[in-house]
Amino acid sequence: MIWKNTVNFIGCDAQYEEARVVIFGAPFDSTTSFRPGTRFAGQAVRNDSYGLEIYSPYQDKELPENVVYDCGDLELAIGSSSKVLGQIEDCARDILKDGKLPFMIGGEHLVTLGSVRAAAEKYPDMHIIHFDAHTDLRRDYLGVELSHACVIRRCWEVLEQTGKNGTDAGDGSGTRNMADICCADGRIHQFGIRSGEKEEFDWARAGHTDFHPFTLDGLDEALEQIGDAPVYFTVDLDVMDSSVFPGTGTPEPGGIDFLTAMRGVTKVCERVNLIGCDVNELCPPCDPTGASTAAACKIIREMLIAIANRQD
Amino acid sequence: MIWKNTVNFIGCDAQYEEARVVIFGAPFDSTTSFRPGTRFAGQAVRNDSYGLEIYSPYQDKELPENVVYDCGDLELAIGSSSKVLGQIEDCARDILKDGKLPFMIGGEHLVTLGSVRAAAEKYPDMHIIHFDAHTDLRRDYLGVELSHACVIRRCWEVLEQTGKNGTDAGDGSGTRNMADICCADGRIHQFGIRSGEKEEFDWARAGHTDFHPFTLDGLDEALEQIGDAPVYFTVDLDVMDSSVFPGTGTPEPGGIDFLTAMRGVTKVCERVNLIGCDVNELCPPCDPTGASTAAACKIIREMLIAIANRQD
Amino acid sequence: MIWKNTVNFIGCDAQYEEARVVIFGAPFDSTTSFRPGTRFAGQAVRNDSYGLEIYSPYQDKELPENVVYDCGDLELAIGSSSKVLGQIEDCARDILKDGKLPFMIGGEHLVTLGSVRAAAEKYPDMHIIHFDAHTDLRRDYLGVELSHACVIRRCWEVLEQTGKNGTDAGDGSGTRNMADICCADGRIHQFGIRSGEKEEFDWARAGHTDFHPFTLDGLDEALEQIGDAPVYFTVDLDVMDSSVFPGTGTPEPGGIDFLTAMRGVTKVCERVNLIGCDVNELCPPCDPTGASTAAACKIIREMLIAIANRQD
Amino acid sequence: MIWKNTVNFIGCDAQYEEARVVIFGAPFDSTTSFRPGTRFAGQAVRNDSYGLEIYSPYQDKELPENVVYDCGDLELAIGSSSKVLGQIEDCARDILKDGKLPFMIGGEHLVTLGSVRAAAEKYPDMHIIHFDAHTDLRRDYLGVELSHACVIRRCWEVLEQTGKNGTDAGDGSGTRNMADICCADGRIHQFGIRSGEKEEFDWARAGHTDFHPFTLDGLDEALEQIGDAPVYFTVDLDVMDSSVFPGTGTPEPGGIDFLTAMRGVTKVCERVNLIGCDVNELCPPCDPTGASTAAACKIIREMLIAIANRQD
Amino acid sequence: MIWKNTVNFIGCDAQYEEARVVIFGAPFDSTTSFRPGTRFAGQAVRNDSYGLEIYSPYQDKELPENVVYDCGDLELAIGSSSKVLGQIEDCARDILKDGKLPFMIGGEHLVTLGSVRAAAEKYPDMHIIHFDAHTDLRRDYLGVELSHACVIRRCWEVLEQTGKNGTDAGDGSGTRNMADICCADGRIHQFGIRSGEKEEFDWARAGHTDFHPFTLDGLDEALEQIGDAPVYFTVDLDVMDSSVFPGTGTPEPGGIDFLTAMRGVTKVCERVNLIGCDVNELCPPCDPTGASTAAACKIIREMLIAIANRQD
Amino acid sequence: MIWKNTVNFIGCDAQYEEARVVIFGAPFDSTTSFRPGTRFAGQAVRNDSYGLEIYSPYQDKELPENVVYDCGDLELAIGSSSKVLGQIEDCARDILKDGKLPFMIGGEHLVTLGSVRAAAEKYPDMHIIHFDAHTDLRRDYLGVELSHACVIRRCWEVLEQTGKNGTDAGDGSGTRNMADICCADGRIHQFGIRSGEKEEFDWARAGHTDFHPFTLDGLDEALEQIGDAPVYFTVDLDVMDSSVFPGTGTPEPGGIDFLTAMRGVTKVCERVNLIGCDVNELCPPCDPTGASTAAACKIIREMLIAIANRQD
Repeated sequence: MIWKNTVNFIGCDAQYEEARVVIFGAPFDSTTSFRPGTRFAGQAVRNDSYGLEIYSPYQDKELPENVVYDCGDLELAIGSSSKVLGQIEDCARDILKDGKLPFMIGGEHLVTLGSVRAAAEKYPDMHIIHFDAHTDLRRDYLGVELSHACVIRRCWEVLEQTGKNGTDAGDGSGTRNMADICCADGRIHQFGIRSGEKEEFDWARAGHTDFHPFTLDGLDEALEQIGDAPVYFTVDLDVMDSSVFPGTGTPEPGGIDFLTAMRGVTKVCERVNLIGCDVNELCPPCDPTGASTAAACKIIREMLIAIANRQD
Repeated sequence: MIWKNTVNFIGCDAQYEEARVVIFGAPFDSTTSFRPGTRFAGQAVRNDSYGLEIYSPYQDKELPENVVYDCGDLELAIGSSSKVLGQIEDCARDILKDGKLPFMIGGEHLVTLGSVRAAAEKYPDMHIIHFDAHTDLRRDYLGVELSHACVIRRCWEVLEQTGKNGTDAGDGSGTRNMADICCADGRIHQFGIRSGEKEEFDWARAGHTDFHPFTLDGLDEALEQIGDAPVYFTVDLDVMDSSVFPGTGTPEPGGIDFLTAMRGVTKVCERVNLIGCDVNELCPPCDPTGASTAAACKIIREMLIAIANRQD
Repeated sequence: MIWKNTVNFIGCDAQYEEARVVIFGAPFDSTTSFRPGTRFAGQAVRNDSYGLEIYSPYQDKELPENVVYDCGDLELAIGSSSKVLGQIEDCARDILKDGKLPFMIGGEHLVTLGSVRAAAEKYPDMHIIHFDAHTDLRRDYLGVELSHACVIRRCWEVLEQTGKNGTDAGDGSGTRNMADICCADGRIHQFGIRSGEKEEFDWARAGHTDFHPFTLDGLDEALEQIGDAPVYFTVDLDVMDSSVFPGTGTPEPGGIDFLTAMRGVTKVCERVNLIGCDVNELCPPCDPTGASTAAACKIIREMLIAIANRQD
Repeated sequence: MIWKNTVNFIGCDAQYEEARVVIFGAPFDSTTSFRPGTRFAGQAVRNDSYGLEIYSPYQDKELPENVVYDCGDLELAIGSSSKVLGQIEDCARDILKDGKLPFMIGGEHLVTLGSVRAAAEKYPDMHIIHFDAHTDLRRDYLGVELSHACVIRRCWEVLEQTGKNGTDAGDGSGTRNMADICCADGRIHQFGIRSGEKEEFDWARAGHTDFHPFTLDGLDEALEQIGDAPVYFTVDLDVMDSSVFPGTGTPEPGGIDFLTAMRGVTKVCERVNLIGCDVNELCPPCDPTGASTAAACKIIREMLIAIANRQD
Repeated sequence: MIWKNTVNFIGCDAQYEEARVVIFGAPFDSTTSFRPGTRFAGQAVRNDSYGLEIYSPYQDKELPENVVYDCGDLELAIGSSSKVLGQIEDCARDILKDGKLPFMIGGEHLVTLGSVRAAAEKYPDMHIIHFDAHTDLRRDYLGVELSHACVIRRCWEVLEQTGKNGTDAGDGSGTRNMADICCADGRIHQFGIRSGEKEEFDWARAGHTDFHPFTLDGLDEALEQIGDAPVYFTVDLDVMDSSVFPGTGTPEPGGIDFLTAMRGVTKVCERVNLIGCDVNELCPPCDPTGASTAAACKIIREMLIAIANRQD
Repeated sequence: MIWKNTVNFIGCDAQYEEARVVIFGAPFDSTTSFRPGTRFAGQAVRNDSYGLEIYSPYQDKELPENVVYDCGDLELAIGSSSKVLGQIEDCARDILKDGKLPFMIGGEHLVTLGSVRAAAEKYPDMHIIHFDAHTDLRRDYLGVELSHACVIRRCWEVLEQTGKNGTDAGDGSGTRNMADICCADGRIHQFGIRSGEKEEFDWARAGHTDFHPFTLDGLDEALEQIGDAPVYFTVDLDVMDSSVFPGTGTPEPGGIDFLTAMRGVTKVCERVNLIGCDVNELCPPCDPTGASTAAACKIIREMLIAIANRQD
């Protein structure tokens, strides 16, 4: 009999039933404003993850067996943002319903909106931690509201809406004080931002988000303030400097270096009550050296090891 | 005083008012099923056209001055196919209204639908000549109807609809016999097709289109049959073999060679009553050698020279 | 529950038990004399096969469901040719034992030797049809005998040896006349060869192989002569001209064009008693345009459709 | 009527008459000693500048409207350095004559000589601030004196000559004390230098230039010393480390990082009496990731914002 | 003791004294009108020639030992066309003086002028056979006369001048009838031309050259007419179609295929009284697949084998 | 007479007899676990070294003439690791026998084993200093012991074995106290390691190597401890961050920057009793920008200058 060699992200060979974390790819880039190609990220990180090991010398831990299931890439309705977001939302909802953590690999940043909708439905009081070079806070981009340049603004609206509808999280945790969550302001924590329009920076600084431009400074304080509230973590990899991460639609010099980014994502995954996450905006065809994909793989590995080794 | 050096397609420096042909770029690729990047085609052919001359030794003619105006690329609402098609339709309609010929440079093939809508509005009895590797006749692609894989099917529907609404062409040619044009069947002439689903080939072969797979064989007969009916000409450059045209989203081996393609487009532009055209699916980042862009430039130049030298 | 999206070659989603054809990848390139990288071919053709359809307009047939199983790439002992050949031989032997046809995707051409050993063990009277730009008939390459530059010479030796050992094929077909198969000479049919050392050409022309340089001319005669003897078919894709297939370790101008190649492989797969085959020497990193991978995908698809539609 | 979409550097849409700054491209690379291709920089930064915004979060300022005019690339006599330098000198002289600031985008570094000649003619007492990885102080390169490897030596000679000829600057500032400017020594301020021949380093260290190897250390002191003397600022982008700026003819590891470079150019543009500047040695085909072009775009944007927001 | 492994073109390991043919590289591309980079051709063909064998199955001959010496690339004064041409002329003159055949590898096509000057000095009655996509007959290119776009026009002037000066060839062949050679018209035989300005085509067709556009048709007649007159052969590799030869500054679709080109150059080298030749306009960085370099290598090999096997 | 222009590493034009240092290339990559291509490093650094000067501003020294001989690349038996290692060992032994220092340019890291065998034969008490991103301490890689992932483990075994056999070094230095060298533990000094399996890290930390993960911290102490014992220095260039060195089989973010690496290698070469060294794992086709090759060139130049200027 012949063995079937399926290409999962390295070490992510659990069965679905036993897994606590579920990886899925969201190969979508239809609203990318500059150079498209992030749709190829899921397969690229799977293929190239075999250049890695399952041991992190930084955390001195391995990725345990039987914890992560990789269900491959979704088959998305390329060309229709609203359909695609529905497909992503359905997938994330199913994973959450089964008590697992959805770990999405973009695609462009707009895919986050699908997962956030599903997560906010279950956790209306959740916070979002957002690493990015860009504010992503535009009202619209050339008249289009479902654009990767607007995704965090759309997420803020989701939080605002679900906060108002705010009911019990439905996870047996008892009644919550909805006063805490009736407003989205301050529940999105942005780090590393170094590009955007003046209106976006003004809107963020007006208190709509917990805004930390340029670096990850203030991350410890934010984590402390968040406490044990549920957190969705979205990592736009272009938060890293274009020297280490040129492989993205809009490469951005002036960003944080790899070790800072890696320590940042590890810290978030170790400390917060993480209920979902994504890593996005890797555009493999934009970097023929493969170094960007390698950096993405290591960021994902460190996140998985941190999540998988948590004792909840 | 300083001279402004604007990058137009070579030889296309006419003023709008005097021009008989108007080039515009449609930088859109949101529904591309495989590798996106055709949005960069307009600028690429303008830049690289300076590797050409305005003289064609094949036609032994030059591109005359004062005939072609190049208005650059449209600023399209990336991410929203319906908005984008509206923008293209508006642009083409304006050009047609001014009695000029719209010459669109895609972008992916879906952009053709915008121009065809505008053209069919003015010329409900028009034919479409279609060079392509793909049928583009799907009902939908993964549930999306506005997809580059469906564009000729959508065009057929436009012809069907406008045919039924069929009124005088509004060009002073007098009353027409609407019986001739009440049906789209047979008014789309497809050449070079070598890929598609079985259903698409069956649908075409059932008589919905005038179907010529693999080569340009039958072009002379089709031109004769079309006579002086108005013709919209859409050239998907992947009709050419992938050896000479690898720079496209889905490269297709087994196609026609460059000289055959060039002679084919020249023949169409010389003979028919051309009322609009486009050249699409060049994806510059897919071919770092630039040879695909060079081939596209030459195809466009030959078309322009043939059109511009016609005495109508 | 979450659906697992596994990347098989398009249309090759059968279960192992029901399949008649089994695809496996052999990601090995350690002996490549010039530019390595063929190890990435298996994943590349799987990923890019989604740019194809399962319908061939050339054969006017679809790839039927439930016929082809794709077991992914083997995990080979990179760096040790002898171990790797053993792994491949074991895999091919298992498939043959189960009465299925092994369809290997290289890797460099040396991988053929593993499959040929397994096939010749079962079919000592088998012939080999060989499409290639290179003779691959060297005794050794810089002192190394297990080299892709020597693989057909090694295969000849296998035929010579198994011919001498020639026993009943073990498939219930009864006693054979070993006189027919006691010698390897003439049982390897080479087509398209256009490079090699003088000694190789001399050795081939001396009658050791059925030698057809430059083109596929003589294929019909060879097929007729082979009759219903078992045939292993090995396709080095560099038989195609470097214009359509630059993505290989040693690109070779002056080869056959894509349509000729495609018709040739189809003819072989339709007519002979095929018992195993491989397609090799695609080197995806050597062709960033992806056109070479596209050509490889189509060659594989046509072969699969021809094999799968045969009524044996 | 159809709108003409011209590709200017983002935000540089002023009319010539109202503009205070005039951008022009100098697409020349005939003397490049290693890898040519800088001729494509002008169009590349214009195209890719649309990945930027006109707002700088670093300066918390926008690029104001009506300040910068972009006249495109000059049409230069490729192959003749002396003709090309004449063309550049003429262009810069015209801009200076109109009381505007010439902002040239190279091209290789030799183009600076053309602008410096025009600037020194008007401002014989001017200083030059030079950011670069290389000294560019050779007497000749393989016998050629008009080489990008010699450009700062040639500029020194211009300063020496115009200093000796030194007359009133012709800008209404009255008579000057020519003693201050009769010698070029010390009027060229070099920063970031990390490559060159021993003779070049010795010549610089002998006091001919104000020499600051490796970093921007000493920039504040130099700016203070320069005071309000007119300054021409030439930025060879390879002053940046090859990690963030590989896209240049001779990539140089060991350089300053992007933020240091960006702060340095901003400081110069904010503080000195800038009368002309250029940014050169971006070679777009050398970096297919586009990250080098992105870095160049941001350096240019920050310079423009700093210049445009100055109240003179 | 350690062996020195020098990278010569494959099989070109003769000592200078014994050699009949001398290869030298002319790494110059300063006047290239579109994409520079041909300076890297010499090293590229040497490195990649090891993907070839010294046996040609087309000619059924090997490259004999002790016939060809490869002296590497000249160190040229990049940036100064006149100096560079002088260096090339000196090198070719020395080789000719020693009774050997200079075989130059460009570089851009302008380098031919240096060799032609040296050759015409010795052979004032020589003919030039010219394979190219471009006429190269401009008077000047943007005001520059020493440009690769003008090189054949310059060569014609050399023939015209040396013809008028026409003296005995100095090779002991006795007195010649200068009437035959007093005019350059008709002594340049152009094949494969498919691009140029109308003026160039008109000038050629007026009889100044023996003009054969598009193909090699007429080559046999030309060879017959030339008889045993001395011939300089210049091969601009872009005479080949851009599908097989995209790696050049200005790729040109619509050209001859590889086999036609190879047979053409072989025929010339076998039949005429060849006194010098060059192969130019390979631009390795323009074709990352290496297929263009492979095609160039094979063209050069076939020429060398044909020359080396001639019994003069 | 014609000058032969041989491409040596810049400044390495000594005759063999006079040279103190001998460069040789080892173009081998057959066991590379991820992306092969390091075989092209030797020619790449030779070609691109001409972008450098022979003067180091960091050391304020030039590379002296007559010190370094470059014998080119070995012709290795690609495909057979054991043969290749034998060829390398022979070459290094010959150089050592002649009292010169072998300076090998890989190729993948496995090539180090050949040189180390030769060096340890002469210097059984030698230490190894190892800069790398990876431990390279596996027992085997997928069953293969001669793999670049195992090379330092193999080197440790060589030290262990030669230590036990420990005899007089054969260089006239008289009898040694074998007690000092009977064990390999602690004689390999590893720096910069940031990837590997847990077992490798555990084995290193158990004292088998002097282990310094992540950075070069502890280098001074190690050099002091080593004293004047003979040292073989092996530099896997991927010790550098993937931002400055993406051009390697497995790019590794999180490494040391260029200046740190350059100062580290300089310090080792200045201080220790160096008896052999290598620089490996540059994979030129993995980085089309050339920046990785540029970084490798500068590392090699600084090492050569430091070695050549030592007064031993």
